[in-house]
Formats: sequence, structure tokens, C-alpha cells
Amino acid sequence: MSSDSSSPEIENLFPRVRIVLVETTHPGNIGAAARAMKNMGVCRLVLVAPLKFPHDKAIWRSASASDVVENAVVVPTLDEAISGCQLVIGTSARDRRIPWPMLEPRGCGEKVEAESRQGAEVALVFGREAHGLKNEELQKCHFHVNIPTGKAYSSLNLAMAVQVLCYELLQARLHRETPGSSGIVEQPWDMKFASTDSVENFYDHLEETLVDVGFHDPETPRQLMTRLRRMFNRIRPDQMEINILRGFMTAIQQKIGKK
Amino acid sequence: MSSDSSSPEIENLFPRVRIVLVETTHPGNIGAAARAMKNMGVCRLVLVAPLKFPHDKAIWRSASASDVVENAVVVPTLDEAISGCQLVIGTSARDRRIPWPMLEPRGCGEKVEAESRQGAEVALVFGREAHGLKNEELQKCHFHVNIPTGKAYSSLNLAMAVQVLCYELLQARLHRETPGSSGIVEQPWDMKFASTDSVENFYDHLEETLVDVGFHDPETPRQLMTRLRRMFNRIRPDQMEINILRGFMTAIQQKIGKK
Repeated sequence: MSSDSSSPEIENLFPRVRIVLVETTHPGNIGAAARAMKNMGVCRLVLVAPLKFPHDKAIWRSASASDVVENAVVVPTLDEAISGCQLVIGTSARDRRIPWPMLEPRGCGEKVEAESRQGAEVALVFGREAHGLKNEELQKCHFHVNIPTGKAYSSLNLAMAVQVLCYELLQARLHRETPGSSGIVEQPWDMKFASTDSVENFYDHLEETLVDVGFHDPETPRQLMTRLRRMFNRIRPDQMEINILRGFMTAIQQKIGKK
Repeated sequence: MSSDSSSPEIENLFPRVRIVLVETTHPGNIGAAARAMKNMGVCRLVLVAPLKFPHDKAIWRSASASDVVENAVVVPTLDEAISGCQLVIGTSARDRRIPWPMLEPRGCGEKVEAESRQGAEVALVFGREAHGLKNEELQKCHFHVNIPTGKAYSSLNLAMAVQVLCYELLQARLHRETPGSSGIVEQPWDMKFASTDSVENFYDHLEETLVDVGFHDPETPRQLMTRLRRMFNRIRPDQMEINILRGFMTAIQQKIGKK
């Protein structure tokens, strides 16, 4: 089974990773899975004996991922789908009779990212909408992966499961490429944070204005400036914001004849 | 808006978290979002002016999450949907003109899990299938969250986006409950954050005062209110701070004879 990475219009971040869907019943799920894959930079789709394929619904639900659907490889058996793979991971409910090495989605993403980057061919295998993978199919897998759910409803839609595992795969790539990254995006701000001096001058101006309008009496401060400082320190204002605030103070003072 | 936690058949792991879908076009997406939510133990769905609802397709696509669809609250405006919330997070493309505090899905899950557990009402807001959230809607949010994608195709299906963020929310809960997990430490604040309604009333009062002192002309706004909203949303003022700020505005207005 060849990689699609030669196709110029497809961005294939994971040329050695294939998504395998076994005996999918609804063609809409194939399309939705293709979209979920392409969103995460995964492009190789293998379909084992799909019930209805090709099908308009698969194209329609794929939205702008029709290329992934059209390039899907259809094979009659799981053995052919995973041929040539060094790592095969199958999705599974948690309570199988025979325990198997289990991964969580995050660990699955990290493992697939690392091994495929080091040259391994990898298959992520998803079962039928109603019954999942059979035991004999699960036993062809090196690992099983289970997506944790609430207790009330543990059965994810097929394409949603593809979405979660492909999301974790791309997350693993992004986190590897940005060491020490956390959940908070360090986005460049459009203005520099104001300097401490600039902020101190603003506090002086603010206190002066508070006194001018009769809201603040420095003789009985009631922790007012402490609370305002704590609040504005939480913001870390940028210089434009300081300029706006000081402009507001000046306008107040002019209006009441203090400046 | 009351919690659904009283309903016995619903397992609501996150009784203070509501999923808000704004002007959803396809009822199938509402159903798919409901299923994605219930899979992850999230049950409160709020729909802002959905195009077609109630609708058979919503029920059908929800599969065994029809209870979430049937208990969905329909409101005409985003303001009503986020009423009473102390934390509002909106999904957004990354390249907005005015940068806003951003979260990644994982950081979003951790933040929502921690704050809702400590008593905050939280809204996760998702925009229209075709156009997302409008700028004025994004400006009502404390944080924006962006789901990283490959470059070739960055637009996730709506229900897929709901799936990813609810997945990360449940992941945050599970990792917190598992010893040895890298839980983030959230320091409890000494006051509750102000509700969205309280903050919106403050913005109205602030704008009125800015006009009164001649600093702001709504006819030529120069992005002034946008910048001030962004600044105060960064603070996330508590109720005492809102009281101080409003007291200051009232003092200004009294001093210049406007109140």
C-alpha cells in the first residue's frame, strides 16, 4: 500500500500512518472521518469491505476532504489493510475478556507520532459502528486504545473516535516540536506591556482623579488603591491601554475644571 | 438558566458547564454535538437562535443522547445564553485582528474543569458552521480557544469541535483524579468573579461616563470600547472591583451634574 505523499494537493504530515475503517455501514461516517483526518494532517484512508462505497454521502460529509475519500484504498480483509505495518493499534471498549496492552488516546498519539517518525508503518484500526472490532481482529493489534467517556454513554460515533485519535496524533507532533509548551498559547500581543514607571504614573493620575471627583479620601483610604492596584496588575496593561486610561482621567479633570 | 443535574437519567459530570451553539444551521450538527457531549459527561446544551429546531435529524444524529437534545434550552441571544457565567470561552480561528487571550484545547479543558469545580458557571461557545463567531460575540469572551489543525484544511465540523473540547474537559477531570497526574494548581480567589450580566452593566455605565466627559463619541468609536473590553476581560474583575469601578463612574457623573 503506497503513501499518498506524492499527491501535491494533499498535506500529509503523517505519510506512514494509515487510518483503517473496518466494514463501515454508513458512508456518511466515511466522509466525516476523512474530514477529521485531513483537519489533523492525516491523509491515508483504507476501507475494509465498506457496505456502501463509493457513495455521494461520503463525498458530501467530507466537505473539503473529498480528496481523502477519493484516494481511499478499498480492500477485502483487515490483513490486507495492515499489510506492511510495524505498529497496529485497534480501538476497543475497555472490558474485553482477554486483557491486552492498552493505550490512552494521548499515549497513542505520542506512540504513533514517535514510531512513524522513526520509520515505522502504522495502522490505526476502527471497527464497525454497531459492534466494533471482533476479537480475532483485536488480536492482530499490538495495542488497543480506548477513549475514556462518561459512564452514561460510552459509545462514540465512529468519525468522532477518528477525530479524537487524529487530534492527539497532531498534538503529539506539535508538542514535540515545541518543547515545554503548555496549554496556554503565548500569542504575541499587538502592543508592548507598559513599563512599571508608566503604570506607576497612571496610579498617581488615577488617585488624583479619584480625589478630584470625591470618591477617594487619602485620610480614610479603605484599601481602595490597594484593590485598584491589584486589579490593574492582574491586567498587565499595554502602553496603548495606559494612554486610553490616562486620556479618560484627563477628560474627567478637564470636565470638572481641575486641569 | 438552571442546571440539569436534577434529572436522574442524565449523568452530569460538569453541572456548571454549558455548551452554547450560536445560530446552528444544520440540525444534524446539534444532534451530533449532543452525542459528543454526553459521551464526555457534559449535558447542558444551550442553542442561540438555531435555524431548524426542534428537528428529527437532531434527535436521529444524537443516537442515545436524545435526552440532551430534548433538554436543550433555546434562547434568542448570546447574552441570554451566557447570562450568569463567570467564565466564557469562545472558539475562534487564530488570525483575529485584535489578539485576545488564547487557550489551546488542553489548557481550556484544565481551566474549565478547575473553575467549574470551584463554583464558577462556565460557557463554551461555538459559532456558526460557515462563519464562526462574530467579532462582537468573541469580545464577550474571556478567552478564545483554537483547535490546532494541519495547514491544508483548518475548518473542523462543528460537532467535531465540540467533541475535542469536551474530550479535553473529561481528560482534565480524569487526570486530576488520577494521582501523579500533572494537575495545574488553581489558586482560589478571595471573591467570586463577577457574572457576565454584572460586567455588561459596568460596560454600559463606563461607556455612558466616557460620553459624559467628552472622551468617547459613539459615532467615531476608534475601537475604544473594544480595547477597554479586552482590557477588563483580561482582568476578570470580581464583584467588589465592579462595585468600586461603578462607584467611581457614579462619582464622576454626580460631580459633573449628570446624575
